[in-house]
Order: sequence, then structure tokens, then C-alpha cells
Amino acid sequence: MVELKDDERLDYLLAENLRIIQSPSVFSFSLDAVLLARFAYLPIQRGDIIDLCSGNGVIPLIISKRTKASIKGIEIQERLYDMALRSIEYNQLDGQIQMIHGDIKHMPEKFGQAKFDVVTCNPPYFSTPPKGEKNSNEHLAIARHELLCTLEDAIMVSSKLLRQGGKAAFVHRPGRLLDILTLMRKYRIEPKRLRFVYPRQGKEANTILVEGIKDGNSDLKVLPPLFIYNDDNQYTNEVKEILFGKEEGENANTKKFP
Amino acid sequence: MVELKDDERLDYLLAENLRIIQSPSVFSFSLDAVLLARFAYLPIQRGDIIDLCSGNGVIPLIISKRTKASIKGIEIQERLYDMALRSIEYNQLDGQIQMIHGDIKHMPEKFGQAKFDVVTCNPPYFSTPPKGEKNSNEHLAIARHELLCTLEDAIMVSSKLLRQGGKAAFVHRPGRLLDILTLMRKYRIEPKRLRFVYPRQGKEANTILVEGIKDGNSDLKVLPPLFIYNDDNQYTNEVKEILFGKEEGENANTKKFP
Repeated sequence: MVELKDDERLDYLLAENLRIIQSPSVFSFSLDAVLLARFAYLPIQRGDIIDLCSGNGVIPLIISKRTKASIKGIEIQERLYDMALRSIEYNQLDGQIQMIHGDIKHMPEKFGQAKFDVVTCNPPYFSTPPKGEKNSNEHLAIARHELLCTLEDAIMVSSKLLRQGGKAAFVHRPGRLLDILTLMRKYRIEPKRLRFVYPRQGKEANTILVEGIKDGNSDLKVLPPLFIYNDDNQYTNEVKEILFGKEEGENANTKKFP
Repeated sequence: MVELKDDERLDYLLAENLRIIQSPSVFSFSLDAVLLARFAYLPIQRGDIIDLCSGNGVIPLIISKRTKASIKGIEIQERLYDMALRSIEYNQLDGQIQMIHGDIKHMPEKFGQAKFDVVTCNPPYFSTPPKGEKNSNEHLAIARHELLCTLEDAIMVSSKLLRQGGKAAFVHRPGRLLDILTLMRKYRIEPKRLRFVYPRQGKEANTILVEGIKDGNSDLKVLPPLFIYNDDNQYTNEVKEILFGKEEGENANTKKFP
């Protein structure tokens, strides 16, 4: 049993055989978070992983199926942190995943510098808009706009938390490609793997996935493009597998992300 | 008639219905140059275009079919400059294309700053290797290694030559993506269009095409990926059209680039 508050739903993470609490008025995870969780390098047996800007804990939940390492998730909004806590408990993952309610900028002080092997982060994408224009729903505004956490905050904090040779993976919009690569190099997370996500063949990329190594050498690879939909407007096989798993891909629910 | 020296050949630029002098021991143009010539924005009716590191003049020749603008090509190697001159004369393009034998670093002084609407450049790709290891053929070494022209030289010179709002297009390797984007921004050529070229589906990119605007605002688009070969090991339709033109694509010679 799990307590659901207000308009919360207990949704599925099909490929991982997990359930996750979401709410249309507070926070629902995006396809980007799922793609990042699959893109990031993870140690299989042991290690320390930290996910920044965790929202409802979608990334810690998904990656728990690919690693036995200890996973921490940081979320500044108490309402979202509370959703993540209940999802982790429902899935009986409290032994592996620890949620922390707090500001990512305080985490290097809390945990100490250079304590993690992997950092993942799906940060807010949009610059802070002028007052009045921003999303009037405060939960959604904080998750989507750089109100409490800028891209530079996320990268600077990631660098402090990472051990030398540790890896940080981010997801963002192509319009910020130059900023993200420049900031990664500025904070000594050398970009190593870059993947562009396209809605379909012939369209411009709408998402970037990038991974860097703390104090790594300069040698960037651009991975094969990832297409979300095929010409028939169905998820491509790669995306089906990411969302629904290897066996269930064919028959699974094909509800689209917003 | 055209004079061919040593092992020179009079090859075809099929899509443009032009001929070009090449030599396996001195210089042969690459697919990258052809892709750049097609990628670059060009004014149609009038304007001033300059191609840096022109080699045997392949880019000036190709773009002459897409624009009535005046085109200058700069080449530091006299032997290659001489090949370009003869190709331009053979194709009766001396009225539109002017080749200059010289160092690109002297061109802002020669022509004055901010005199061009478009700059194209397919620079040498490889860092200067230790003496002894580099290509022992001096012509090929200069064309391929940063002996006489570094990436930073090419971008700095491009910026000086460009009018405000003018466009510069470059082709390079993905390993230098971060350097090229950073240098473009450093020299006020804001990256606007980025396209990755993949040998085929499922492979890492091996070439990048990037265009920036002098003093442009920050708004980078990542264009659809370009695949060179399809699963049957034939050129894709897009590449066929670039190489052989719209009508001849189906029956044309499918000789591969090295």
C-alpha cells in the first residue's frame, strides 16, 4: 500500500518493473530523465552515485536496476522529495536509494569533496523569466526554470562531488550546447560522450545527452543519433526498449510524453 | 585544353558539371570539402565570399554554381594554387573566382577588415606531430597538419575578414568540437548551425559542419544528422544528390572517397 495525496497517481516504470508517484499539478518525469538514466555510465557492483535535481526520484529509481552501488538523490522541493520517499519505500529500495531534502549547492559541504563516482543531473532547462511571465505553478516553475539552480550551479557542484576519474552525465537542450560544454571544461569535467536526440529523421535535435570525466583528457566522441519516433509515428525500437524493456516492447502502452 | 603536370588528372565535379585538376601525390579534394560547399549559406545574387585553405580550389569551384557573388580562394602552397588556377581557367570561371597565393594570416591586411559576407574554410585537421612522424610528403603534410595554419588562425582570420552579420562555415573532426565552438565564440563568430556527419546509422560521427554569424546572438540549432552510406553500403540519396546532382544520382559513378 502507498498513500497518494491530492491528484497523485502511481504510474509505471515498465522497463524496470517499478512504480512511481507522479502528479500532473506538481511533477511528472519527462522522457529526458529516462534517456539520461540509460545514457549514464554506472558501476555495476559498487560505488557511490548521486543524482542532483531529482524531482520525484525517477533517475535514482531507474538506475537502481542497473547497479548495486549506493544511490543518493537530492531534491530541494519538499513536496517532490516526499513523493520520491514514498516511491522508494513502495518499491522496497530504501536499502539502496537515499533521498536528501536540500539545496544541491550545500551538498559538497555536507558530503565532502570528491566522494562520488558518478553524478547524474537533469537540471531546469529555462533561464529565469521576468517576474510575472514565469510559470504560476511554483512547483513546476522551480523544476523547469533556473530559479534555485542554474546550469553553472549544477556543473560546479557536480565537479566538487566527483572523484578524479569520476563521471558526470547531463541532459539539456541543444541551444545550451556551447554553454554546457564550456562550463564542463571550466569545472574540469572534460566532455567525452555526446549524443543528440532527434524527434524523428530529418528534424533538428531537441535534446542533448553529454557525459564528462573529472580531469579527463580531451577526446570527445559524438555517438550515433537517437531518434524518438519512426516514420509511422511510433516509438523507434531503441526507445521502446528503453521505456518498456526488451520483451514487453511490442505490446506495451505507447502513451506519448508531453 | 588544359596542361596536366606530373601525375595530375582532370577529374569530374559531377553535380556541378565542372572539371578539376587533382593529383594523388600533391592534393585531392575530400568529401568533407564537398559537404562544406553545400552546407555553407551563400548569397545568391551578389556579395563577397572568401575561401581559406583552398587547396586545388574545390570549394570555390563548387560554390560558383550556387551564387553569382565574387569568390576569392586563398592557398599557401604554390603547387596547389597553380592547380586551382588552371582548373578555374579550364571551366571559364576566371570572371567570378580569383585565386590568391598567400598565407591566410596576411589576408585581413591585404583586403582590409570586415570586407566579406561569407567565409568558408576546410582547415588542416591534425595537430602538428613530432618531427619525423609527420607525413613525409610536404604537400600532403601542409594540407593535413597544422603546420602553417592552426584552427585558431583560421577562425581568427575569418572573424577579421567578416562583416558584422556575415557567416563563416567550417568543417572539422568531432574530437575538436569543443575547441572549434569555443574559438568561434572567442572571436565573435557565434555558432548557429551545427550538423554531424555519420558514416552510417549506428556509427559515431566522423565529421562536423558548423556555421556561425559574426556578432550573432546565442541560438544554436543542431540540424538533422547526415549519413554517408546506407545499410547496403551505397551512398545515401542525400549524398548522391550532393555528389552527382539530382538527375544523375541513380546511374552515376559511385567511387568512394578514401
